[in-house]
Amino acid sequence: MTATETSKQILDAEKLLEHWQGHRKLTRRVIEAFPEDKLFTFSIGGMRPFSELALEFIKMGEPIVHGVASGEWKEWSGAAPKTKAELLALWDKSSEAIERIFPQIPAHRFSESDKAFGKWESPGIGVILYAIDNEIHHRGQGYVYLRALGIEPPPFWERS
Amino acid sequence: MTATETSKQILDAEKLLEHWQGHRKLTRRVIEAFPEDKLFTFSIGGMRPFSELALEFIKMGEPIVHGVASGEWKEWSGAAPKTKAELLALWDKSSEAIERIFPQIPAHRFSESDKAFGKWESPGIGVILYAIDNEIHHRGQGYVYLRALGIEPPPFWERS
Repeated sequence: MTATETSKQILDAEKLLEHWQGHRKLTRRVIEAFPEDKLFTFSIGGMRPFSELALEFIKMGEPIVHGVASGEWKEWSGAAPKTKAELLALWDKSSEAIERIFPQIPAHRFSESDKAFGKWESPGIGVILYAIDNEIHHRGQGYVYLRALGIEPPPFWERS
Repeated sequence: MTATETSKQILDAEKLLEHWQGHRKLTRRVIEAFPEDKLFTFSIGGMRPFSELALEFIKMGEPIVHGVASGEWKEWSGAAPKTKAELLALWDKSSEAIERIFPQIPAHRFSESDKAFGKWESPGIGVILYAIDNEIHHRGQGYVYLRALGIEPPPFWERS
């Protein structure tokens, strides 16, 4: 993704962070919408309960931003949350870390190829978009869980 | 999204088109994975069958790219597909139109605010990201439908 005189640059780092944090606010509301027990147990078709999907987003978010910023790839470490309150606290901690670290990503790291977590070769922007897309994808799964439970999910277009 | 000397431009139009088309290839595989009848009828929690979600993506894709490119907002017109083959044909037509029109979007239209379809005020990049996010979101719903039907969905990370 080398910028050339004819390339059209259409997104800056600040806007992408804002876009992601809007999605994260929506995901937080989806976590909140689950009844405490269903959050950790409800499943369709053998898929993971929404608490595990949300934990996956936590395991990806800060470590990816840290890795793209620094080139140092560290697995998330911590205990899996056992209550909705614990999950939401981890969520907020993760959002704060992303907010703090993202602006420190040097410009060249977005286009520079690296091996994320020693495994996935991609430019920084690719890994970050993957994290966002993965959150949207599995959150969509959470919408079906909520509907199957007879619960109206938060509006998809509301991001503030 | 005015570029300043300190802003970090991290994505160009060509890369975003490639990213979107990768998602569209995956969505096409999700359509294909449904048995013919289930594609048009299967639902969980009162949500729409996957054929209707895919048609929504078709109604958004080309008209949005055309609107951002030209400032002219036209609703998609056409008959709703009645078979998987018809849906896939519309899908391919839509992908081809996006591939053709997207590179014609003038650089300034990505940041310029406009009222999409006379209703939604947003910069061009916002409307395009919304279309992509909406496809990922509802396709995630399709994954749950497939799992509930005992069908292994195509891998999320495969985009070619």
